Amino acid sequence: MSTTIDATQQTTALTEDQADVLVRERAAESRNASRVLAGLTRQQKDDALVAVGETLVAHAETIIEANAEDLRRGEANGTSPQLLDRLMLDTARIEGLRSALRELAGLPDPIGEVVRGSTLPNGLRLRQTRVPLGVVGAIYEARPNVTVDIAGIGLKSGNAVLLRGGSAAASTNAVLVELIRTTLVANGVPAGAVQTVDDGGRPAAAAMMRAVGSIDLLVPRGGHGLIQDVVRNSRVPVVQTGEGNVHVYLHQDAPVERAMQIVHNAKVHRPSVCNAAETLLIHADAATAGAAAMTALAESDVVLHTDERAAALVPQLETVPATEEDWATEYGALEIAVRVVDSLDQALEHIRTYSTGHTEAIVTDSIAAQRQFVAGVDSAAVMINASTRFTDGGQLGLGAEVGISTQKMHARGPMGLAELTTTQWVVEGDGHVRA
Amino acid sequence: MSTTIDATQQTTALTEDQADVLVRERAAESRNASRVLAGLTRQQKDDALVAVGETLVAHAETIIEANAEDLRRGEANGTSPQLLDRLMLDTARIEGLRSALRELAGLPDPIGEVVRGSTLPNGLRLRQTRVPLGVVGAIYEARPNVTVDIAGIGLKSGNAVLLRGGSAAASTNAVLVELIRTTLVANGVPAGAVQTVDDGGRPAAAAMMRAVGSIDLLVPRGGHGLIQDVVRNSRVPVVQTGEGNVHVYLHQDAPVERAMQIVHNAKVHRPSVCNAAETLLIHADAATAGAAAMTALAESDVVLHTDERAAALVPQLETVPATEEDWATEYGALEIAVRVVDSLDQALEHIRTYSTGHTEAIVTDSIAAQRQFVAGVDSAAVMINASTRFTDGGQLGLGAEVGISTQKMHARGPMGLAELTTTQWVVEGDGHVRA
Repeated sequence: MSTTIDATQQTTALTEDQADVLVRERAAESRNASRVLAGLTRQQKDDALVAVGETLVAHAETIIEANAEDLRRGEANGTSPQLLDRLMLDTARIEGLRSALRELAGLPDPIGEVVRGSTLPNGLRLRQTRVPLGVVGAIYEARPNVTVDIAGIGLKSGNAVLLRGGSAAASTNAVLVELIRTTLVANGVPAGAVQTVDDGGRPAAAAMMRAVGSIDLLVPRGGHGLIQDVVRNSRVPVVQTGEGNVHVYLHQDAPVERAMQIVHNAKVHRPSVCNAAETLLIHADAATAGAAAMTALAESDVVLHTDERAAALVPQLETVPATEEDWATEYGALEIAVRVVDSLDQALEHIRTYSTGHTEAIVTDSIAAQRQFVAGVDSAAVMINASTRFTDGGQLGLGAEVGISTQKMHARGPMGLAELTTTQWVVEGDGHVRA
Repeated sequence: MSTTIDATQQTTALTEDQADVLVRERAAESRNASRVLAGLTRQQKDDALVAVGETLVAHAETIIEANAEDLRRGEANGTSPQLLDRLMLDTARIEGLRSALRELAGLPDPIGEVVRGSTLPNGLRLRQTRVPLGVVGAIYEARPNVTVDIAGIGLKSGNAVLLRGGSAAASTNAVLVELIRTTLVANGVPAGAVQTVDDGGRPAAAAMMRAVGSIDLLVPRGGHGLIQDVVRNSRVPVVQTGEGNVHVYLHQDAPVERAMQIVHNAKVHRPSVCNAAETLLIHADAATAGAAAMTALAESDVVLHTDERAAALVPQLETVPATEEDWATEYGALEIAVRVVDSLDQALEHIRTYSTGHTEAIVTDSIAAQRQFVAGVDSAAVMINASTRFTDGGQLGLGAEVGISTQKMHARGPMGLAELTTTQWVVEGDGHVRA
């Protein structure tokens, strides 16, 4: 339990070298644990997941106490009410964590799946099997539920996790990690399976990004600043998740009712998440559908940042003139940028310029337009006549979700358990040699 | 054709900023080209590949002249005969390049493959399709055939490539790139599909590693030093290839003849390549098999770097005492390190300590030992009773090979065309919104 010291009591910051040593030592422990994890049966992993959920509920009071410390510190530091709400854990949310862990236990084990297999003409028997990555690092912000989430997903996929949570949730995270580790050990899983480097502060986060060979994959979870910091500075492979400057394009034939419903759902259903729409592009000939969509948004108190032609479609509504910055903004709130375009090509050009590669949607019945849109958009997901809100592991049937990858390799789009694994070739012969 | 200036005439080195500008400008041109490439049919790509092969053969004299310049410069700089041989292109080798391009044209197109697909309970129709990565950067050394190789594989997989070859082959590469680009344009493929940044020298290579967002994937090809430099310094996602400190383990029951043949093939068949064996581990109870294998190696002039117990198995042979360094050495030559271990566990411990994660082999008929070995080895490929030389795209039936990935995400093991692609989700609805 040596790693779960009180992370709120950071004294002087570690030097770069000290942080490197700290991270390499912890990662070595993670590596040792990962060798045990790779060999656990599904039953062993599922039992441990269920047990962790029970422990959290049984110790809800302790967690809530620690969480209260974080909340007090946050209030004293002038943290916004929204962030305080994301930081907050109560009995209901802790029970939610237990449910999530139970659901995870119910999912199939990705490890051991045979992805490809064949017998070669020379008789060699090939199989490519799914194996854990090994040591997965996570750097994330305020929300303490991410601690439980990543620990659970890591365990189910056979990976050891090394966590660096935000200092705002330090007290809560320290207690959560301690409870998780104790429960794992009681269930025959090594404590090294879940470790934190929170006691190393920011220098430890930077050291994680340098830990090539010690950490196999780094997953940043949080806002734009955090993700960009990790993507730009990490030498360890990163899966970039969750940035969504998402577009909905209404083609010239977009049916009015369908356009209105999709745009409204994409923006208003849950404005703070990464698959929510941020820009509406309206073909000049889809004025009626565009106006209807904008009116529906305004009725749900969405602020419309419009170019002049979009504003002219809804003279009865109050709109804000859009600036260049608006096209690149992920509002994450009840705001949307709206632009009128003269063609599908112009829409695609706009999307290529401003998209973060997450999700784009088109509303049209034209097969030609659908095909051109799919081919012209370089994003993880394309929605045809459907809300952008469907880019989601749960919605697409993947079960647990690690995040939505906007990266172009490994995993792209919603990442389930399988996306936290890699593969190994096993080749069986009978003394085969190459001629 | 502005990018193919004479790369041998490098004047003063670019500053970091100048190199960044150069790489970003070229990469932007690559990005534009990649949009056209993504939409080409297989026929268009295959025609261009075949045409490039014909052009190279038709201009063999020009290529050989430029190559002679590189060879003269190499000789003057005291380059080793082996390296000069790798640098050299003659008519036969140029015809070999044409054959390779024709073979590439014969392979199925990875683009457009539907990887997964389903219809969800709510009627949404999902498909996950294979799409190009976009812009692939390559940093490589002396061998000019890599220029043609990567250009061809890039084109077939729908990616634009940005090349940085070694200065030793600068004249040859400049001519090759010019010929390729001219032929592509004549076949309706944009010249931006294949570009070099050789005129930017080393600073351009460093700038490629910083070009996050402009380059989607960086593939280093060459020796240990080059690969480690890219892996440690690149912020752009990298696929690490080709480092192989490969082990063969003879379990206690290893049949003598089979052990001898596999060890000999793994080491002697082609000692310079990454899937050649570098260390032989012999169970103490497999003394006869071990001695037979070592004797066979010695008869093929393999230098044996042995620990004391291994030396004692073959008192009649001349051996060199192994040092700690030998265990970590990828000889790439007729040399091998040999160690006697007391157990499979000890063999696994040795492999975990020194392996580069490429390929390991076990010779045994024990199912229990095979299973323990497969589970205990954290490498891209595991051979059971087969030579390590089978870790190869061609041997495993993948067709063209980009390299052998020792990285644990995206592609692991032999990388074919599909490993230079990513996927895109396409979701079709009929006005679907989330409730």
